[in-house]
Amino acid sequence: MTRQILVNAFDMNTPTHLVAGTWRHPDSQAWRYKDLRYWTDLAKTLERGLFDGLFIADVLGVYDVYGGTPGAALRGGVQVPVNDPMMLVSGMASVTEHLGFGITASTSFEHPYTFARRMSTLDHLTNGRVGWNIVTSYLDSGARNIGLATQELHKKRYDIADEYLEVLYKLWEGSWEDDAVVRDATRGIYADDTKVHPINHEGEFFKVPGIHLAEPSPQRTPFLFQAGTSDRGKDFAAKHAEAIFAVGPTAEILKAQIADVRARARAVGRDPYDIKVFSGYTVVTAETDREAIAKHDLYRSYVDVEGALALWSGWLGYDLSVHDLDDPLNIVPNNAIQSTVETFGKGDWRVRDLIDRLALGDGGPVAVGSPATVADAIQEWLEETDADGLNLGHVVTPASYEDFADLVVPELQRRGVYRTSYEEGTLRHKLFGRGDRLASTHPGARFRDLAGTGTVPSSLVDDASPIDELVRES
Amino acid sequence: MTRQILVNAFDMNTPTHLVAGTWRHPDSQAWRYKDLRYWTDLAKTLERGLFDGLFIADVLGVYDVYGGTPGAALRGGVQVPVNDPMMLVSGMASVTEHLGFGITASTSFEHPYTFARRMSTLDHLTNGRVGWNIVTSYLDSGARNIGLATQELHKKRYDIADEYLEVLYKLWEGSWEDDAVVRDATRGIYADDTKVHPINHEGEFFKVPGIHLAEPSPQRTPFLFQAGTSDRGKDFAAKHAEAIFAVGPTAEILKAQIADVRARARAVGRDPYDIKVFSGYTVVTAETDREAIAKHDLYRSYVDVEGALALWSGWLGYDLSVHDLDDPLNIVPNNAIQSTVETFGKGDWRVRDLIDRLALGDGGPVAVGSPATVADAIQEWLEETDADGLNLGHVVTPASYEDFADLVVPELQRRGVYRTSYEEGTLRHKLFGRGDRLASTHPGARFRDLAGTGTVPSSLVDDASPIDELVRES
Repeated sequence: MTRQILVNAFDMNTPTHLVAGTWRHPDSQAWRYKDLRYWTDLAKTLERGLFDGLFIADVLGVYDVYGGTPGAALRGGVQVPVNDPMMLVSGMASVTEHLGFGITASTSFEHPYTFARRMSTLDHLTNGRVGWNIVTSYLDSGARNIGLATQELHKKRYDIADEYLEVLYKLWEGSWEDDAVVRDATRGIYADDTKVHPINHEGEFFKVPGIHLAEPSPQRTPFLFQAGTSDRGKDFAAKHAEAIFAVGPTAEILKAQIADVRARARAVGRDPYDIKVFSGYTVVTAETDREAIAKHDLYRSYVDVEGALALWSGWLGYDLSVHDLDDPLNIVPNNAIQSTVETFGKGDWRVRDLIDRLALGDGGPVAVGSPATVADAIQEWLEETDADGLNLGHVVTPASYEDFADLVVPELQRRGVYRTSYEEGTLRHKLFGRGDRLASTHPGARFRDLAGTGTVPSSLVDDASPIDELVRES
Repeated sequence: MTRQILVNAFDMNTPTHLVAGTWRHPDSQAWRYKDLRYWTDLAKTLERGLFDGLFIADVLGVYDVYGGTPGAALRGGVQVPVNDPMMLVSGMASVTEHLGFGITASTSFEHPYTFARRMSTLDHLTNGRVGWNIVTSYLDSGARNIGLATQELHKKRYDIADEYLEVLYKLWEGSWEDDAVVRDATRGIYADDTKVHPINHEGEFFKVPGIHLAEPSPQRTPFLFQAGTSDRGKDFAAKHAEAIFAVGPTAEILKAQIADVRARARAVGRDPYDIKVFSGYTVVTAETDREAIAKHDLYRSYVDVEGALALWSGWLGYDLSVHDLDDPLNIVPNNAIQSTVETFGKGDWRVRDLIDRLALGDGGPVAVGSPATVADAIQEWLEETDADGLNLGHVVTPASYEDFADLVVPELQRRGVYRTSYEEGTLRHKLFGRGDRLASTHPGARFRDLAGTGTVPSSLVDDASPIDELVRES
């Protein structure tokens, strides 16, 4: 049957995520990001729209490249103030049953031993609905505040991240055997201590001798998202990620990116389609094309030019405040987001384009029109790029998601390309249809037998069902 | 009017918090600690009982002193597995309006820059209901897993903690002026960047140049709990704490501890009653004394001796597995909980007493009886010790809290010593009745004027109402 379209909503615990200025639109609730009710209502809306998950971006730093200060970012509320995403999860989990939560957290800012426990806790509390977006951090301002030498960090960040993941896999996959928790009231035994193993990790960056503090959670390793865009970042994603976020302004550019990551996955022995690709995408829709275009024009009138340039200056690692809007972009590679620099830093792009063509999204396409028009555009985009679904940004929140749930989802369902109900099970099972645990070809799986018993409990072994079973059967 | 009794519930994200073995009682839901519903139901029960808050203990390590391995702790489910407490808050906040949340977190395990944002986020999401129990960590096993040299840690941990707090105060109190967030849609300004200040902290242990990432939350600094029991720990508490947890097996011992902390607070220029004291306490109650005694006997029959000794070995820093139950305790000072070692380590205590007399609590008294009997005992205890209220442990959860809410609370209310409804406002305002912010005599208050304007915004200045206004008026 037809390949089903996956959809994540893309938000951030801040007044302005990607579209500067639209918090001022009368329908916008973005400024209510501090209010738990904003998040629980949003989660209910997304579950009504049968979204796969809510992905919450994060930065631990400020956009201070534009003009060399965080002034523009603060004035525009552009990713600053920014609150912690992890703290939102149990609130939203308490009002939903199926929605997944993709939490961004950096390998540079917390020790893996404590981070492992936080994520296991969330996986327990959500019944296996938690995902982790692995970032290594790109804002120097964040690193400085925790006392890291920024150059050192950039050079080694993926080496550190690789070892960080190894520590986590040992804790999540290997420390507790599947049948370690017996909870036998008669014998008075909660856990069989012979089945709980210290991980004895001694590496270049971390020494972790002990056991994992949390018992095995439904997914053990949370579902792993990644968005590495540098050469090293793409190798990292190809090795570890179960899903990636990818952004491209044209189908051609995105298609090449996706093919590249899939090829790298194959090169390290994984099935290239064991990585789901969520493509950065924005939708402005209404009952008719005419109404949608009017809405789009109205939204554009709210764009805050300074705020947008503050964001783009951060992404590009280049101070755009020194330019006129008609100047061509000509940016040398630096420590910022590498694919962004590669895609937009040179060639035909002018500063003005960042505002006129890209300010309502994240650099990916903006589909404007009736549900049928938008559905056509989405289907064509996914077909051309080989992406599995959308990482759906908002222009006005929660209106953008309500519109998508109420208008576009029914249209996609009519076309047979979007689920009509949730499958039971964990986030991983919902996305791959092969159970709750990491695929046996995933590098994390090799740490399952820490005890050296030579046997992997059968419940951890993936069955032989085809990788796109979920896609085909729903 | 009569001094009102404060009550915190005392729990932990683990199968066995303080009473080993009772997870096996048919009414116990302790093993459901991984289930968000356990916590949301508990929060609703506590709010029904008009509790001040739920205090969630934590350790980032295992009890491996007994027998030199974590075996006994694992078998008994004794504070291991143990999940993260912070992850529970937004879930419980989503189903309650007034209940406070006291979260334990160590100054040894996370950088203050990221920790500051997590707590600010929770203070926003809970509308100012979050408290922080400041711990410096006492289990060596935790320190080892994040690569800390344990001896170094013990020597310097309070020096590090003092500077840690300074960084936090600068971020929480000083970085954003009260009127920095303007949210002016017409002018398109979210925050006035001239009122957001980098903290420029350069200390011995931390360098934090930047601004706080979160805008001011209702309490700014979360309500500060502490439980330091060493000499240095008591000084730390006297300086920073707004409430402390104190445990004593007799009124005489506890009274001396409390008087000591209050005297130390006075010595650093604070009002001694600006520190609320929650006393470790356990209640087993039923309609009649006879039924309560029967319940107590039944509960005692569930006590897991090995598990209890594993806990006590950790608290005492001494391996009790080498002793017979009738051996007297004779323990030399070490790195464990110092007041515990001082109180129980010598004198008339035998190993057996830890089981027979103390295993149903945390070393504080266990009141057994009808609501009237228990209320008498509580009132007498608080009068004799000068504590402000109870840190109420459970023997069986949530039954112990349901019993207290349904039986003891009405009795205390009839006596006019327990609130009949919640006051509006933040946790700090509920406990002191003087607004949402730190008292002006609190050391954190001195970091309010980081910008050096010489003026403290009026909303931050405490009014002159007496410190026990809340107590008197309710």
